[in-house]
Amino acid sequence: MKNVGYYNGVIGPIEQMTIPMDDRAVYFGDGVYDATYAANRIIFEADAHIARFFRSAQALRIAPPVTPEALKSELQRCVELIDSAGEVQVYFQCTRGTALRSHPFPEGAANLLITVRELPLTPLSQKGRAILVEDTRYLHCNIKTINLLPNVMANQRAKEAGCCEAILHRGERVTECSHSNVHILKDGVFHTAPTDHLILPGITRAHLLRVCERLGIPSVEAPFTVEELLSADEVLVSSAGMLGLGICEVDGRSVGGRAPDLLAALQRAMVDDFCRETGYRLPVLD
Amino acid sequence: MKNVGYYNGVIGPIEQMTIPMDDRAVYFGDGVYDATYAANRIIFEADAHIARFFRSAQALRIAPPVTPEALKSELQRCVELIDSAGEVQVYFQCTRGTALRSHPFPEGAANLLITVRELPLTPLSQKGRAILVEDTRYLHCNIKTINLLPNVMANQRAKEAGCCEAILHRGERVTECSHSNVHILKDGVFHTAPTDHLILPGITRAHLLRVCERLGIPSVEAPFTVEELLSADEVLVSSAGMLGLGICEVDGRSVGGRAPDLLAALQRAMVDDFCRETGYRLPVLD
Repeated sequence: MKNVGYYNGVIGPIEQMTIPMDDRAVYFGDGVYDATYAANRIIFEADAHIARFFRSAQALRIAPPVTPEALKSELQRCVELIDSAGEVQVYFQCTRGTALRSHPFPEGAANLLITVRELPLTPLSQKGRAILVEDTRYLHCNIKTINLLPNVMANQRAKEAGCCEAILHRGERVTECSHSNVHILKDGVFHTAPTDHLILPGITRAHLLRVCERLGIPSVEAPFTVEELLSADEVLVSSAGMLGLGICEVDGRSVGGRAPDLLAALQRAMVDDFCRETGYRLPVLD
Repeated sequence: MKNVGYYNGVIGPIEQMTIPMDDRAVYFGDGVYDATYAANRIIFEADAHIARFFRSAQALRIAPPVTPEALKSELQRCVELIDSAGEVQVYFQCTRGTALRSHPFPEGAANLLITVRELPLTPLSQKGRAILVEDTRYLHCNIKTINLLPNVMANQRAKEAGCCEAILHRGERVTECSHSNVHILKDGVFHTAPTDHLILPGITRAHLLRVCERLGIPSVEAPFTVEELLSADEVLVSSAGMLGLGICEVDGRSVGGRAPDLLAALQRAMVDDFCRETGYRLPVLD
């Protein structure tokens, strides 16, 4: 198949798949999701993403209709069905159920939705540009839910400004981006926001911290400010699809560029880990 | 039909209707909605709800695939198709479109979804109980979007406490409820929060203000506190389905009950207006 859509065990091309009109995703956004990549039909960091998915569900008292093991097996099944053995995104979502619209939790089982589609990871060889956007989201950003309207609006603003990301901040404090975490390098130290309710605990963020430890780069998990971001030696963003993309410009002002070797070392280690786990030569640094 | 589901012109019973898996409602909650009631096949305050729906869409730069006039006609068509000529809820929603998941706005048309189903308005003859819940929502509560997870969670907490509503507050300031606005009566004056970004500008709230004017009851649109709520002469909540429900208890503590005649006059006027516009004898005060 060109791409794979899955809904409660039914499988078909995404564009031909349908779901009930009264799935609670449709009118409440009442669900959680997670996403990672596969290459060479190996799902990268599958266990970490599945564990976070179950934590998100638990935070909202949603009971996924599968065990973590069964979910992993269903994800793998979908990855086997797509034509491509290259870079594919693996997305999975669980919603609270299907029922006529009413706020309280419904009776009945939760719904499982999966999509697998070709989507290359972001090249890291060129830096990206970003804008700053005030973070007006709710105070549950640690839960990976499908209530993503502020993220959509911020991301669209970035796109219209010719940028790849919107860096969000609550007043002076930088939180994260519209669909990635953001970090800075300063005087040889990796700085990233703490995993409180204001940011998503990124799997790639955690991976970057492990890489720092391995490479002997000190790291600090503490809030940092817009001013610190603008005066950092390097600024980078990370997500499952961006294994540490350098940022060269924020709101039209040059940032970073003062620790290129350190940034390159981080990127190289991240890409090496991806290649090692999947056996796939990822070309994002070419 | 027992109930009516509508999606981009296709009509059927809600439970049998499906929508594309990649409607942006499903994975971003990228849409707006509105809802009102019809009785005797007359849609109550249709123009006000339709106007707010288009304002919500405009705030998110979503272009509904119909004009306000065409929407009104489609809503009426659905109201004609349901078996019941009694109290029915009329719900309508527009999402940004259908496309493989990607944050920036997609090409292509927005989607229109409608449901019409039997749902009696809330009886007003008995007061309800409520709980207080810290308002942790985003800062776009003036836009009627389908990003409703905090509302769902607060409403479920209320239900589990044996209550009909969760009254939200940001620190000391009362904002609104999980699916209604909240107001207080004090010394003969009707107090309600101003229509800023922290509350939905309720159509029923606006109607209550007009009724106050008609009845010679002074009204104030200004923030009020939790303490003022707890010491009010009366507390009432309003939505399209609750035309001013009195609240007798908040977090187990008795509230209101000191201006029953004033509350009853407001309720009577609201119900009279509903009956006059629809020609339907609404039994909520029986």
